[in-house]
Amino acid sequence: MQSILNEKKRFLVINPNTGWEMTKQIEESLKGLKLDDVKLEVAANVAGPVSIEGHTDEIISSYHILKLIAERKTEYDGYLIACFSNHPSIKALRELTGKPVVGIAEGACYMAAMAGNLFGIVTTSQKWVPMLKEAVECFGIKDKCAGVFSTGLSVTELHELSGEEVEKEILNAGKKALAAGAEVLCLGCAGMSGLHKRIERELKVPVVDSCEAGLMMLYSLCHMGLWTSSLCMYAPNLPRETINLEKDMEQFYV
Amino acid sequence: MQSILNEKKRFLVINPNTGWEMTKQIEESLKGLKLDDVKLEVAANVAGPVSIEGHTDEIISSYHILKLIAERKTEYDGYLIACFSNHPSIKALRELTGKPVVGIAEGACYMAAMAGNLFGIVTTSQKWVPMLKEAVECFGIKDKCAGVFSTGLSVTELHELSGEEVEKEILNAGKKALAAGAEVLCLGCAGMSGLHKRIERELKVPVVDSCEAGLMMLYSLCHMGLWTSSLCMYAPNLPRETINLEKDMEQFYV
Amino acid sequence: MQSILNEKKRFLVINPNTGWEMTKQIEESLKGLKLDDVKLEVAANVAGPVSIEGHTDEIISSYHILKLIAERKTEYDGYLIACFSNHPSIKALRELTGKPVVGIAEGACYMAAMAGNLFGIVTTSQKWVPMLKEAVECFGIKDKCAGVFSTGLSVTELHELSGEEVEKEILNAGKKALAAGAEVLCLGCAGMSGLHKRIERELKVPVVDSCEAGLMMLYSLCHMGLWTSSLCMYAPNLPRETINLEKDMEQFYV
Amino acid sequence: MQSILNEKKRFLVINPNTGWEMTKQIEESLKGLKLDDVKLEVAANVAGPVSIEGHTDEIISSYHILKLIAERKTEYDGYLIACFSNHPSIKALRELTGKPVVGIAEGACYMAAMAGNLFGIVTTSQKWVPMLKEAVECFGIKDKCAGVFSTGLSVTELHELSGEEVEKEILNAGKKALAAGAEVLCLGCAGMSGLHKRIERELKVPVVDSCEAGLMMLYSLCHMGLWTSSLCMYAPNLPRETINLEKDMEQFYV
Amino acid sequence: MQSILNEKKRFLVINPNTGWEMTKQIEESLKGLKLDDVKLEVAANVAGPVSIEGHTDEIISSYHILKLIAERKTEYDGYLIACFSNHPSIKALRELTGKPVVGIAEGACYMAAMAGNLFGIVTTSQKWVPMLKEAVECFGIKDKCAGVFSTGLSVTELHELSGEEVEKEILNAGKKALAAGAEVLCLGCAGMSGLHKRIERELKVPVVDSCEAGLMMLYSLCHMGLWTSSLCMYAPNLPRETINLEKDMEQFYV
Amino acid sequence: MQSILNEKKRFLVINPNTGWEMTKQIEESLKGLKLDDVKLEVAANVAGPVSIEGHTDEIISSYHILKLIAERKTEYDGYLIACFSNHPSIKALRELTGKPVVGIAEGACYMAAMAGNLFGIVTTSQKWVPMLKEAVECFGIKDKCAGVFSTGLSVTELHELSGEEVEKEILNAGKKALAAGAEVLCLGCAGMSGLHKRIERELKVPVVDSCEAGLMMLYSLCHMGLWTSSLCMYAPNLPRETINLEKDMEQFYV
Repeated sequence: MQSILNEKKRFLVINPNTGWEMTKQIEESLKGLKLDDVKLEVAANVAGPVSIEGHTDEIISSYHILKLIAERKTEYDGYLIACFSNHPSIKALRELTGKPVVGIAEGACYMAAMAGNLFGIVTTSQKWVPMLKEAVECFGIKDKCAGVFSTGLSVTELHELSGEEVEKEILNAGKKALAAGAEVLCLGCAGMSGLHKRIERELKVPVVDSCEAGLMMLYSLCHMGLWTSSLCMYAPNLPRETINLEKDMEQFYV
Repeated sequence: MQSILNEKKRFLVINPNTGWEMTKQIEESLKGLKLDDVKLEVAANVAGPVSIEGHTDEIISSYHILKLIAERKTEYDGYLIACFSNHPSIKALRELTGKPVVGIAEGACYMAAMAGNLFGIVTTSQKWVPMLKEAVECFGIKDKCAGVFSTGLSVTELHELSGEEVEKEILNAGKKALAAGAEVLCLGCAGMSGLHKRIERELKVPVVDSCEAGLMMLYSLCHMGLWTSSLCMYAPNLPRETINLEKDMEQFYV
Repeated sequence: MQSILNEKKRFLVINPNTGWEMTKQIEESLKGLKLDDVKLEVAANVAGPVSIEGHTDEIISSYHILKLIAERKTEYDGYLIACFSNHPSIKALRELTGKPVVGIAEGACYMAAMAGNLFGIVTTSQKWVPMLKEAVECFGIKDKCAGVFSTGLSVTELHELSGEEVEKEILNAGKKALAAGAEVLCLGCAGMSGLHKRIERELKVPVVDSCEAGLMMLYSLCHMGLWTSSLCMYAPNLPRETINLEKDMEQFYV
Repeated sequence: MQSILNEKKRFLVINPNTGWEMTKQIEESLKGLKLDDVKLEVAANVAGPVSIEGHTDEIISSYHILKLIAERKTEYDGYLIACFSNHPSIKALRELTGKPVVGIAEGACYMAAMAGNLFGIVTTSQKWVPMLKEAVECFGIKDKCAGVFSTGLSVTELHELSGEEVEKEILNAGKKALAAGAEVLCLGCAGMSGLHKRIERELKVPVVDSCEAGLMMLYSLCHMGLWTSSLCMYAPNLPRETINLEKDMEQFYV
Repeated sequence: MQSILNEKKRFLVINPNTGWEMTKQIEESLKGLKLDDVKLEVAANVAGPVSIEGHTDEIISSYHILKLIAERKTEYDGYLIACFSNHPSIKALRELTGKPVVGIAEGACYMAAMAGNLFGIVTTSQKWVPMLKEAVECFGIKDKCAGVFSTGLSVTELHELSGEEVEKEILNAGKKALAAGAEVLCLGCAGMSGLHKRIERELKVPVVDSCEAGLMMLYSLCHMGLWTSSLCMYAPNLPRETINLEKDMEQFYV
Repeated sequence: MQSILNEKKRFLVINPNTGWEMTKQIEESLKGLKLDDVKLEVAANVAGPVSIEGHTDEIISSYHILKLIAERKTEYDGYLIACFSNHPSIKALRELTGKPVVGIAEGACYMAAMAGNLFGIVTTSQKWVPMLKEAVECFGIKDKCAGVFSTGLSVTELHELSGEEVEKEILNAGKKALAAGAEVLCLGCAGMSGLHKRIERELKVPVVDSCEAGLMMLYSLCHMGLWTSSLCMYAPNLPRETINLEKDMEQFYV
């Protein structure tokens, strides 16, 4: 397929954690979409925790994403943040690049909103329930969300446990979501990528793979020639005096 | 680009009105996206008013869309309703086909929500302001909408007036939207398709062409292998006794 | 009682489906109110499905209501749409007649809001749950609604099953509503008309018969000399060019 | 017209203030509806301020309404509180009588919601703007309210000034309401009763007289045989030990 | 600690009911905070019911609070209404004094909002559930409230039953709140003062004592030199003509 | 005044930026409260931008706050984040310490909610308008907020410009807030600390100094013996494998 620019779009996909399995999993899930006019680069953070499970993790991983961006001089046509959350780096990259930047959570939520009446989110640990409810509110889509439902598994357990065990817990949480009025499910963790078809077969409702949804949304924005509005919320970072900033990051303030 | 099914997707794009110009305009706008793994069929209603300007129009045009669907035995992979509204036919086609069905208004709103903080909708006559506010609420995305702003033009005037006049009114309404906090604009009428780039140049914010957005959303849903959940809201139409139904439509009830 | 016009008000009550039982049931329920300064005409659609159970039904029945209106040259003082939903014909009749037009669902909801703190809606099949939740939101009264609760019965089963069976299912759904915080119930289907007193006796809370509520609301609007504002949302249908419109309907566009 | 009980309904209309003009005005407005199967008794408070303009007034007037009720042993079929507010006595009378009790503000708001898309409230002094916004929220109907607009007049000025001056200020406030999206107006003070038709002629939108609306709503509730749910919010006042209570009021606690 | 005025602040704490135990309990709970730059005066109503359990009680108790205020010529720096509700006297005292006036319910809710993500309210009888839900909405903090949960106990039973029985019911209601997503609890009755630490030990979440929270909020407002804005909602009561007003209260109208 | 623990409370106040003036200003404002049973330690970030003006700044400053915390082994009784925003470090410190942690924005908003009906926020640059609107939503207090109003000044200009110029712009923005229905103002930047009394004198409404409000809220939480609920949203950070984490920070993951 021809892109508007008649050349391949370059997307940088960022896994905010440092987990090798998840990075591979994200890459496979995205490659599976076979968008052959897109050149995908999938990067993981080189420092930080192996999974994103809370607020401290979000700050540390966002900081390292800024470093990662600072170090890559090359231009990308768009950025995908592969963490199912309202990850702080999404807003920062919009501010710093002015390019389309999509988080897999918002992408999945908007996509799910078109695949049925209400969607439910299946997440990992209980702690993600309030975190994702707040995220959904910030995405402005809470009226279409029937709730967030925990599998009780930590992010890391998604890889430590057998596929059967993981699938079983996702099915249990998914059934709770359907009982609460959801008609579509979002798998609320990049670590669940690739499992959606099996869940669909069991529950007979559309199940949104968040990485796929995020990529298709980013692809759509770019294909339409859209970018991030820098009028106000995402106005460029102001040049300012800084102290003891890591070298690379100084460029954000000049 | 290869679709999952390794063959071209077939989309039926429906212009609910009977206006020839608008149908052409929609077709051009969609063709411009050059999705070469998609086979687009663009159909207009064969009966009804030349434009959709209110509630009576919505019913008549929805009825004729049902007839149009009833007459086309061929299968499509997805449906795009090219009227910027919460057009009743969207829900009906979801119910009847179980396939992905997207309205250009919801598609544009969700897309706009990722291109900046708040979006504003520029529409035609004043009457569309409350109609679209209700639509945005039904899409569950009102928290991201800064408002709906009328150009004061009727749908038909979009083609009767010169491009300059139309553009001028869109710019005026767009400025009102920005003053109200919008950072992204949606052109809220299929009849405004193709004008977005000119508005972007003037206002320096992303402007979403609703037909393009609708098609990309439909494309994304299909490309991900998603469909419409038939669990509850869009459960299949029940077989029932009917009276004096037009022949073709009886199939919906058997 | 004397009406303001010192003559009987003429109301047209429309049953959007083609079911004979329900039309009779509606008529009996309304006659029971003995508003002797009102001349009631109860009409059912002459074409379409025997019950309204979804989105396709709503379009087909709304279309035939437009035809029904087009064919009746006589003037009415007000219109009552006897389907417990946000039936598209309500808005269209407001637009076409400028007269008071009430749907039995909105009438029942507002009435219930004055009979106690929160009301619950008891409906037929599960599919009506999301449909009525959206309706209640469009009526702007969701903050007073404790939820919508399904009996699991289809509309047609209301007449096929024995009164005892129907009553039993309504009681079960009603108890769920009370458990969810409802203090008043609305019987959410014209086909439940006349059952409210029996439910009241069992559950000891006010139970609103939607047809009665709709008629009293319409009566009140007319008695006060109110009409439908045609300022914006319900501005008259614009005269326009049409194609292949059924003869009678052309009058809507001249 | 025959009431269900085949005898006249007895309504007690209470003007919470002690102003003679307003009591007369309310009575005339209600008599004008000629509900000849209703026996209206209009009572004003015998103690307290001449108008209700704030929170202290609401408490004092509510207290005296309790006394008024305590002293009237006779039974009424319903009660109308003729103050355009969320007057505390409404809830108390629901609790004490279990009969239908309507406040003219809620009655007018729900009625207005059926006469057009959004309604606006025209009130007296600026102080009533936040008070009525909170009231509208408590009625659960804020989504249909385009705002509350002050005439800048105190309640007493409604009678001190000439009809022309009062009308002029109501028109100015009404125009602000229409500019804000209102399509129907509510005259937000019992002291404005009877002026609605003149405002209608000027502004060409339906204008709801709050006393009339309140009475029609009360009439409708009674005519349908509804009452106030005493399940929870309005459960009967608990018998309890009291100290130094005025004699008459003790009956509320035995 | 030195207050801004370099002298002790004088607070009037008002228990709207006439129960001796509760007044003592409130006093002990507040004294326990040892704010030694505050001079606390704790007053109970001298007339009215022994507990506040509904709408009639709220009016009678508010009326007597006005009398209490009218009789105390001395000035206070702030007022605390020790009833866990949206007690009408709060607004009236703001209007009459212009000083900081805090209700223990709003104080507890805002405090709880900073001690965790969502708070739940544990209250007495079922009737308080809708009453407090409406209160929380009026405080503008409903988005942080996971719900209101009844112990099934009347206010008076809090003193009639043994501490163990009361504690047991509070624990049961508290567990329901946690199950509903609350992470912090508010003890929703002045009669529960002093029990919070025991509940904390059992449930391992912060438990807010509403009297303590109310006093700290009042203390904070005064310590910062804040007062009640008299711009609009709490503008001073207008001087007006009154009839048969109790002597003391006339001062409110001159 | 004696604290419950009969010893001084130790609070760590953190200025997330590296500006010397603002740190001094915050310290003076807090010292002015003369809480003599509190030991205040005011720290500024040792690395990062001189002001917080956007999303990139929030991440960098939050990261350095984590380092600051990691390096301070001593225990504090509470933490105050002196940036008027929904600063990411607030949630992280709640997660890491379990102690009371208050941001000056939430503290000011809740305090303002008790000083009048609606509050308005006066902020620096236009970019903070959407940022603070989102913050107010996350605090769950948006229903009490009349809006956020920009002075058009950058944070740094607050110190570069003369007091008169700054005051003039704050007054202009404040007047816009009052016109929009605000009755209380919050000065929405730590850099505005100390100006509130001058604004109060001009506008005659309570003006909340955000640093003072934040400290009083933190003081109140601690004085009541409250802490941060670690049940779910702020559950302790999970011990996990990390890569290349800065030494000090590793303690967060063991």
